[in-house]
Amino acid sequence: MTGAFIVFEGGDGVGKSTQVRLLVDWLRAQGREVVPTFEPGATVVGAAIRSILLSKESGEFSPRAEALLYAADKASHVAEVVRPAMSRDAVVVCDRYLDSMIAYQGAGRVLEIAEVEAIANWATGALLPGLTILLDLDPAEAMAAITDKDRLESAGADFHLRVRQHFLELAARDPQRYLVLPARLPITELAATIQRRVAALLAGEQQNVGGS
Amino acid sequence: MTGAFIVFEGGDGVGKSTQVRLLVDWLRAQGREVVPTFEPGATVVGAAIRSILLSKESGEFSPRAEALLYAADKASHVAEVVRPAMSRDAVVVCDRYLDSMIAYQGAGRVLEIAEVEAIANWATGALLPGLTILLDLDPAEAMAAITDKDRLESAGADFHLRVRQHFLELAARDPQRYLVLPARLPITELAATIQRRVAALLAGEQQNVGGS
Repeated sequence: MTGAFIVFEGGDGVGKSTQVRLLVDWLRAQGREVVPTFEPGATVVGAAIRSILLSKESGEFSPRAEALLYAADKASHVAEVVRPAMSRDAVVVCDRYLDSMIAYQGAGRVLEIAEVEAIANWATGALLPGLTILLDLDPAEAMAAITDKDRLESAGADFHLRVRQHFLELAARDPQRYLVLPARLPITELAATIQRRVAALLAGEQQNVGGS
Repeated sequence: MTGAFIVFEGGDGVGKSTQVRLLVDWLRAQGREVVPTFEPGATVVGAAIRSILLSKESGEFSPRAEALLYAADKASHVAEVVRPAMSRDAVVVCDRYLDSMIAYQGAGRVLEIAEVEAIANWATGALLPGLTILLDLDPAEAMAAITDKDRLESAGADFHLRVRQHFLELAARDPQRYLVLPARLPITELAATIQRRVAALLAGEQQNVGGS
C-alpha cells in the first residue's frame, strides 16, 4: 500500500470534524485524492452496527459484546474503505480509529486494555495510521460545547477523564506516530500545525516509494 | 454456577430444533427449570446482529467483521441469558454455540481457526457446555430437507462438507463433552439416547454439588 492513513482522535466536542474538513480541503488543493471517513458507521454493515451501539433500546450492553461490535465495525471499515483507498495511493483521513476503541472500552474499567487492543488489532489486520492527531481537551470544557448528548456522551465525568488519560498514554507510547495538540488553540492555528506535520509525512512517503 | 449447559450442534436441516424441543419437554417433565435458547439472535442486541448477518443488503462481508459479529452475539447471549440461567440452577438447552461459530467461520478458509476460537472464547469468558450433542449428517442429505435457503445456506457444497468436518474434529478433540449421533436415526431413538446421556450429566452434577 502506498497511500497515507491519517487519524484524528480525542473526546467528543474537541473539534475533530472541523479539523478533518480543513485537512481534507487542504490536501485536495495539493491535488491529492483524499478519502474522508470515520468510525464507527462508515460502511453499510458499520452503519447498522452503529445504530445498535447508539440505540437506547439496546439497554445495558455486555461490555464484551460492545467491544466486539466496535471491532466488527472496524474490520468492515478497514477491509472495505481504508485498505482499498490506500491501495490506489489516496490519503485516508479518518475521524476516530483504534485509540477511540481502546480509550472508551478501557475507560469502562471492566475489560483488560491489552485484550481490547488484541481484538482491535485482529479486526484491522494490525493496520496502524502513519499519523494520529490527538486533539486534547479537559472533558469538562468539551462537554460544555455539546448540547445533544447520546448514550455515550451521557456517561459520567470520571469516565471521560479516564478516556482522556488513555488517549494521552497511547500517544506517549509511540510519539513518532502522534501529534498531540491542545484543542483549545484557535482553529486556524491548529490547522496550520496539522498541515505542516502532514506535509512532512507525505514528503517521507514520497522518499519511501519503492523502499518497502 | 450450578445449572447445566447443553448445546445442540450440526448443519442446517439435521433436526436440531426438533431435538431441542423434545429434550426441553422431557426435562420439564422431570421438574427442572429449563431455558431453551439459540444462537445467533436470542437477545435484543443479538437479534439486531442476526438481522445484519442474514440480510442480503449487507453484501459481501469482510470475514473478520462477520466473525466479530457472531462473537458479539455470543457475548451478549452468554452474559444476558446463559450465565444468569445457570446461576439459578436452570438447565440451558441451546441450539448452536461455539462449535457453529468455529466450524462455519473456519470453513470459509480465510481465517485461522485458532484465532476464531480465541475470539469466541474471549466473547464467552471461556464458558464451555457440559455436553454438546452433535447431530451429524451428510450435507447433501441435509440440504435436501431445506426449501427456503438464506444467505448462509446458499453457500457451496464444499463449504458444507468442511463445516461437517470441523464439527467432527471439534467433537473428537474433547470426546467426554460430546455425544455424536447420526442425524438420520429415527427421531424417537435420537431423543431417547440424548435423554439417557443428559440424565447421566445431571446425576453427575448432583454429585458435584458443593464439590467445586
